[in-house]
Amino acid sequence: MHLYQSSSSSSSSSSIRDKKVFAKLKLNLSGDYPRKNAELLSAQYGINLLLVGVALILAIAHRDASVEEKDLLSFTTGLMILQLIWMLWYILVRRSQRNTRTERDVNATTCWIRGGLTLLAILSLIMDALKIGYYVGYRLCLSASHVVYPVIHAIHTVAQVNFLWFHIKDVIKSFETFERFGVIHAVFTNLLLWCNGVMSETEHFMNNHVRRTLELEFKNITEGELELEPELHCNCTTSTCALFSQSFTYLFPFNIEYHIFVSVLLFVMWKNIGRTIDVSSNRKSLVTKTQGLTLGPILGLLALVSTIGILVVYITRLEGPREVHQSAISMFYIYGIVMLVVMCSAGALGLLIYRANHMPLDASKNPSRQLDTELLFGSALGSWFLSWCSIVSVLSSNSDPPHRWTNLIYSLLIVLEKYVQNLFIIESLYRRQESVERADPELPTNPEVSSVTASLPPLNGIDNQAYESPGGGSGPTENEQEENGQVYGSQRKQSNVPLPVDSHVAESSNMKRLILKNIAVLLLLCNVSLWILPAFGCRPQYDNGLEEETFGFSTWTNVLNFVIPLNLFYRMHSVASLFEVFRRV
Amino acid sequence: MHLYQSSSSSSSSSSIRDKKVFAKLKLNLSGDYPRKNAELLSAQYGINLLLVGVALILAIAHRDASVEEKDLLSFTTGLMILQLIWMLWYILVRRSQRNTRTERDVNATTCWIRGGLTLLAILSLIMDALKIGYYVGYRLCLSASHVVYPVIHAIHTVAQVNFLWFHIKDVIKSFETFERFGVIHAVFTNLLLWCNGVMSETEHFMNNHVRRTLELEFKNITEGELELEPELHCNCTTSTCALFSQSFTYLFPFNIEYHIFVSVLLFVMWKNIGRTIDVSSNRKSLVTKTQGLTLGPILGLLALVSTIGILVVYITRLEGPREVHQSAISMFYIYGIVMLVVMCSAGALGLLIYRANHMPLDASKNPSRQLDTELLFGSALGSWFLSWCSIVSVLSSNSDPPHRWTNLIYSLLIVLEKYVQNLFIIESLYRRQESVERADPELPTNPEVSSVTASLPPLNGIDNQAYESPGGGSGPTENEQEENGQVYGSQRKQSNVPLPVDSHVAESSNMKRLILKNIAVLLLLCNVSLWILPAFGCRPQYDNGLEEETFGFSTWTNVLNFVIPLNLFYRMHSVASLFEVFRRV
Repeated sequence: MHLYQSSSSSSSSSSIRDKKVFAKLKLNLSGDYPRKNAELLSAQYGINLLLVGVALILAIAHRDASVEEKDLLSFTTGLMILQLIWMLWYILVRRSQRNTRTERDVNATTCWIRGGLTLLAILSLIMDALKIGYYVGYRLCLSASHVVYPVIHAIHTVAQVNFLWFHIKDVIKSFETFERFGVIHAVFTNLLLWCNGVMSETEHFMNNHVRRTLELEFKNITEGELELEPELHCNCTTSTCALFSQSFTYLFPFNIEYHIFVSVLLFVMWKNIGRTIDVSSNRKSLVTKTQGLTLGPILGLLALVSTIGILVVYITRLEGPREVHQSAISMFYIYGIVMLVVMCSAGALGLLIYRANHMPLDASKNPSRQLDTELLFGSALGSWFLSWCSIVSVLSSNSDPPHRWTNLIYSLLIVLEKYVQNLFIIESLYRRQESVERADPELPTNPEVSSVTASLPPLNGIDNQAYESPGGGSGPTENEQEENGQVYGSQRKQSNVPLPVDSHVAESSNMKRLILKNIAVLLLLCNVSLWILPAFGCRPQYDNGLEEETFGFSTWTNVLNFVIPLNLFYRMHSVASLFEVFRRV
Repeated sequence: MHLYQSSSSSSSSSSIRDKKVFAKLKLNLSGDYPRKNAELLSAQYGINLLLVGVALILAIAHRDASVEEKDLLSFTTGLMILQLIWMLWYILVRRSQRNTRTERDVNATTCWIRGGLTLLAILSLIMDALKIGYYVGYRLCLSASHVVYPVIHAIHTVAQVNFLWFHIKDVIKSFETFERFGVIHAVFTNLLLWCNGVMSETEHFMNNHVRRTLELEFKNITEGELELEPELHCNCTTSTCALFSQSFTYLFPFNIEYHIFVSVLLFVMWKNIGRTIDVSSNRKSLVTKTQGLTLGPILGLLALVSTIGILVVYITRLEGPREVHQSAISMFYIYGIVMLVVMCSAGALGLLIYRANHMPLDASKNPSRQLDTELLFGSALGSWFLSWCSIVSVLSSNSDPPHRWTNLIYSLLIVLEKYVQNLFIIESLYRRQESVERADPELPTNPEVSSVTASLPPLNGIDNQAYESPGGGSGPTENEQEENGQVYGSQRKQSNVPLPVDSHVAESSNMKRLILKNIAVLLLLCNVSLWILPAFGCRPQYDNGLEEETFGFSTWTNVLNFVIPLNLFYRMHSVASLFEVFRRV
């Protein structure tokens, strides 16, 4: 107030100061492209990149067309080379800036996710090697792009894993607009490679499916659906061609998961560009206790073993005559119902424990967790849609195959299971750490800071309310201040001094954590099981004939080809999330 | 610090206090279901509702199936009745709470959006009346659900418009979890009605298209594609049946836009549930000056008039022999290229003006604006995909129709135009109001507040940085404080006192605003034009044959049926956004 008055009275000195300020302001602004625009510019670029690729894929799927597979391979190879150049540039720039400290987002990824990705990458490398071997066998009929692609892809994989290990947590602060383009290019290159993998996998599966259906004498499918694979019109020059092409089948699923996971991680990196990381919010290292873990792992391993058994039986029986074929499908549904009932009960139990043990949710900013939530929700859509289609067709169908009503129950359980599991995972990820809550929330650990904060209106606007109201209007707890970035060294140490806690409360709380840990392990192993089945060819939705009758062959096949990859991603992603849950509770 | 020590020394008094606190805490917590979970619970419910409907729609699209249209109509009628009950309950509860002040989000909608919606609703009501008349004509062949549906739909429309006028801005604070279900039910009921409308429209269009294609002797399409409309197998009992069924065609587009707009508005209401509105962030009423608006409106009206001309010529010429048909398509592309070049230039000019006139972006929370951004971006996807498909097919095609290269240029321009237009609209919506910026940013208008804030680390975490850095590290400006909710009465009045501003700067700024206003009007009218064309049947993508050759009839038709409704929504939504831009600049 008085500042304003003094500046208007002594106008000559203030006008000089004003000019300086304006000049400074101008300097500051001109170098800076608005962040929102840079985001949008790069996101639009990335999306269009993907759309070009998808258009090429669709054109290839139509056999008569003049677009050939080598066009798509050249396009993706070009994108990979561009990404390699960018990564090289990025690493060199980082090297030259070694003196300046780079901020890092500790939430971006964990050691075990990077470890898992490295494993998937190694399997992808083996696949590349097999592809090169395959090319050598058929080199007379295949264009050069069929060998350039796996070579570049192998280099790309090695470089990318290296990049993920050392740079994925970086928070980029220089060349922001340019780096945004680089990162989003990497995101969408991986997404396109994922789409490409999904298409190849689907094509391969559909060829098998059509062949099998023709053998079963549902002869109403056109012969044109069968792909002209090199095996049919070309001689292999080495003795190992068949071995190579069969091995692909088992490595495809890992390659597909590798690319989608990398693109999710890179997307988090993209979201982090230009962010200011709140240093104090860095997560404490969690100590994972494994004692008392019995029921969950045992049931989970049982599920896993029986799944592999079911997979083998299903695939062998599907080739048999009609009755054996039908019995295989019925077996799958009964197995599925048992699995899903167990999973639903486990998830519901977890949610009940949470309801009995209220705790405010953590509303601090964390793009990685936010994305996890959205991906779980988004990828569940596909599977839900599949289930509702099955339900509609079961309820309306005129034919009455033996697996009709088990299919209905299975589909309803799928809807319920995803509903409950999403709630459980997301609530687990958003709950605060137990150890923090046990400290008395009434005690302002640093009176000076708390009094200053209390005298001000809430500065966080809306978000604040979410975790202030459950606290019952008490002063800010240690945890709230931590989120606001107001934690000082001295204060942190205090919270580590154990308060005299009621031993009964502690015991019941430990019991609850143990149950939650068991639930997380059980759900994790069940999700692995439900990933294995469709990933290795157990897809009764193609085989049961019921939905095909209601929706028509082409519509239903299109729906499945779109939805099953989404569902595979859902299962893998929930495995990753459940592991995180396991470590947190 | 000393509080902590004193509480541990005088243990007896503190333990009593602790118990009270715990009891209070428990009371506070037990009544409260975590907000994140309530969101997820209701969102999952809504999504599943929609998926059931889409599954039914897909089953109906396959003609041989046992699912009939009356099943879908009964389902949607049931949903509408449920929504009516909820709205009634909501209004009654609000009436009974008339004494307590309801918070309102002023950003949620504007008067003119509600006015536009009312207009669309009236057109929908006319459509319902026509449907009832149509049913009367064919009452012997149609099931009762065909008359119950339009009657309920009419009641639903009237009730919903009433609800939108008086309650859409409400920020719900009581029965939160229940209300979430109510609102999301309304959102997805409207989305399902949109899907249903889109399907009917597409079916109608496809029937016409197939009939026309057969007449042109591309006879490779199966006869089964033609829908069995009542006209073909049933006698009309009144004289007006044909009139009714023809009138539908012209009212469908409005009904479709009505439902999608309502669901967007209701979604914002859902996002607002439980929010704490920052009262000070209420937008000042904008005074829209219209002086100096000449070039934009003139060019825009010219575009609009020529569009209607093109539409009439296109539709009449399309029925003609092959050469006339081809010339109609070429005419469309040339017209499109001219339009898009004008739009691109206008958008680019707008962006250039923004670059020359740097201003920090407004980062305050506003779910409505956030959603606008996401919808613009998301719905542009469809159209981009279409363009890339066209480009792939033009570049790879073996045939050489006269419109080949114009199609290529047109498609490239579509990509560019949406890219530029999105950037322009979103930057316009996120820029702060000019009037605020003109106040001297260096002056801390209330020294007491600013000094307190400066002594603290930034409480807003990341967001803060976005608008602090452009200010050049100066104290918080009036605008920043406003966003943080720290505006006091005395301070606000001060900023209204006009500061002595350089007249040259003011003049150039006024000039810029005038140009921006003209651009907004021009783009608005051009977008209306580009909405009219596909909405009333001018869809050359179906007719030009080039893409059909590359992708195959069924794939290409599926792509178009999915993408064109998205594109229609994009155009309508950009019209709404551009009107907002027009009022802001």
